[in-house]
Amino acid sequence: MTAQVIDGKAVARQVREDVAKGVEQLVAGGGTAPGLATVLIGDDPASEVYVRNKRRSCVAAGMQDLHRHLPGDVGQAEAAALIDELAADPAVSGILLQLPTPAHLDSESLLARIPAEKDVDGLTTANAGLLAQGRSGLRPCTPSGVMALLDQYDVPLQGVEAVVVGRSVLVGKPMAQLLLERHATVTICHSRTRDLAEVCRRADVLVVAAGIPGLVGPDAVKPGATVIDVGIHRGEEGLHGDVDTAAVAEVAGLVTPVPGGVGPMTIAMLLANTLIAAKAQQGRSD
Amino acid sequence: MTAQVIDGKAVARQVREDVAKGVEQLVAGGGTAPGLATVLIGDDPASEVYVRNKRRSCVAAGMQDLHRHLPGDVGQAEAAALIDELAADPAVSGILLQLPTPAHLDSESLLARIPAEKDVDGLTTANAGLLAQGRSGLRPCTPSGVMALLDQYDVPLQGVEAVVVGRSVLVGKPMAQLLLERHATVTICHSRTRDLAEVCRRADVLVVAAGIPGLVGPDAVKPGATVIDVGIHRGEEGLHGDVDTAAVAEVAGLVTPVPGGVGPMTIAMLLANTLIAAKAQQGRSD
Repeated sequence: MTAQVIDGKAVARQVREDVAKGVEQLVAGGGTAPGLATVLIGDDPASEVYVRNKRRSCVAAGMQDLHRHLPGDVGQAEAAALIDELAADPAVSGILLQLPTPAHLDSESLLARIPAEKDVDGLTTANAGLLAQGRSGLRPCTPSGVMALLDQYDVPLQGVEAVVVGRSVLVGKPMAQLLLERHATVTICHSRTRDLAEVCRRADVLVVAAGIPGLVGPDAVKPGATVIDVGIHRGEEGLHGDVDTAAVAEVAGLVTPVPGGVGPMTIAMLLANTLIAAKAQQGRSD
Repeated sequence: MTAQVIDGKAVARQVREDVAKGVEQLVAGGGTAPGLATVLIGDDPASEVYVRNKRRSCVAAGMQDLHRHLPGDVGQAEAAALIDELAADPAVSGILLQLPTPAHLDSESLLARIPAEKDVDGLTTANAGLLAQGRSGLRPCTPSGVMALLDQYDVPLQGVEAVVVGRSVLVGKPMAQLLLERHATVTICHSRTRDLAEVCRRADVLVVAAGIPGLVGPDAVKPGATVIDVGIHRGEEGLHGDVDTAAVAEVAGLVTPVPGGVGPMTIAMLLANTLIAAKAQQGRSD
């Protein structure tokens, strides 16, 4: 293996520590500790684990845990009313609706009730529009986390060729916008792309968020490239990503492992967004 | 010259005729003729010409011309009140604020008052978010016009390499989204792109919206490619675009002229958007 391996855990720890310091300073300066309202509907075990991790991280960063739990058979109107209550509550800096919601609920219309300035997941249409138009707003956590990794490892972006594999609303599309904002020449690939390996081989920075295990191998990587793997899949031999990391590491210059690469960044960026939201709401510019 | 030349005037005429038929059908079916409220602030001569053309085209398509003119020294609050009045008026299907507005006004905040469903220019942040997330909404006129030209000339898009030169909020960025929606592999270039000609040569479909006269020459074009020129510049020898069309036409398979290519499509797509908006507001799905 020749590539350097990105330590996502260490970068995430650094981001969390910076957020914790920012919270301290906000409170020391007369502000209020940011409050994160995680909203869990029903009892899906995986969702419970995710929400518990977010709440713990929020408390560890000195923020207020304003978690709310609704029963799985709650009606649309009642769920909407909760979002509206949190939207109006000045103690709530950020609202995170844990997805998926039970099938009988319209999660899109619930998400649409979250005000852009409290949308710490960065997933509402309003924040997607702000990102698309290059205006300030809350950015989606996973792509922001990738940017933080690239910055932490001093990966140059201006003028380089960046290729994003995958065009999801959660990752691929906002990822492309963030790389474009940093003046990369950006290509977006997807399932209809004709010769994926050929396009990927152009990339100085390759971000793979296709959701297909082992999709990208060494034939798709330019020597010395930075390869970021957003995929995460549970296989017989543990977790692995969209990239065949062991083989790619013989060609690439810098790679993320799975687990321990992009994964730990998502919650860290959620905390960072919650702090940004709280400061904006309390009239303290970032 | 070997390339076929796209006849933007003919395609625009066809779109206008289709819109006029759609208006007739809407009215025949008991609906109301769409109303377009162009808003002109001040007396900029170029803006007056643009607005006059839009109003004429609107009337020619059987729509109501609901033009409003404010003096150049109008205050922000008064201009905002006019937008709010038009937003609330059921006779107004679409609102078009002619840009630029006088320098003392905040045009961004005026645009933000236009409801997404009446934003027939497709330029508000709300519609940019809908486009970015692949949801239905009103699309910006110029990029939509390019798509209409590509479709009229049966240019395949799925799986092809499309390159967009320029990343403006008005053209480049939405253009990339529209091409992606049609399953092209899309690359966005800009002023920081290292070897522009090399990147452009990959394109099966090349859309140039950089605002730089003659930026793209034959060295940047793959043989047989479709080259769409969104630029328009007034030179000593008349109008010309971002593409050196005469030279490029020796290499490309299909090219747009300037004038008479993309230009005529913009007003045609504005009319199409106004009809879409009117039908949606009157509860008639498209």
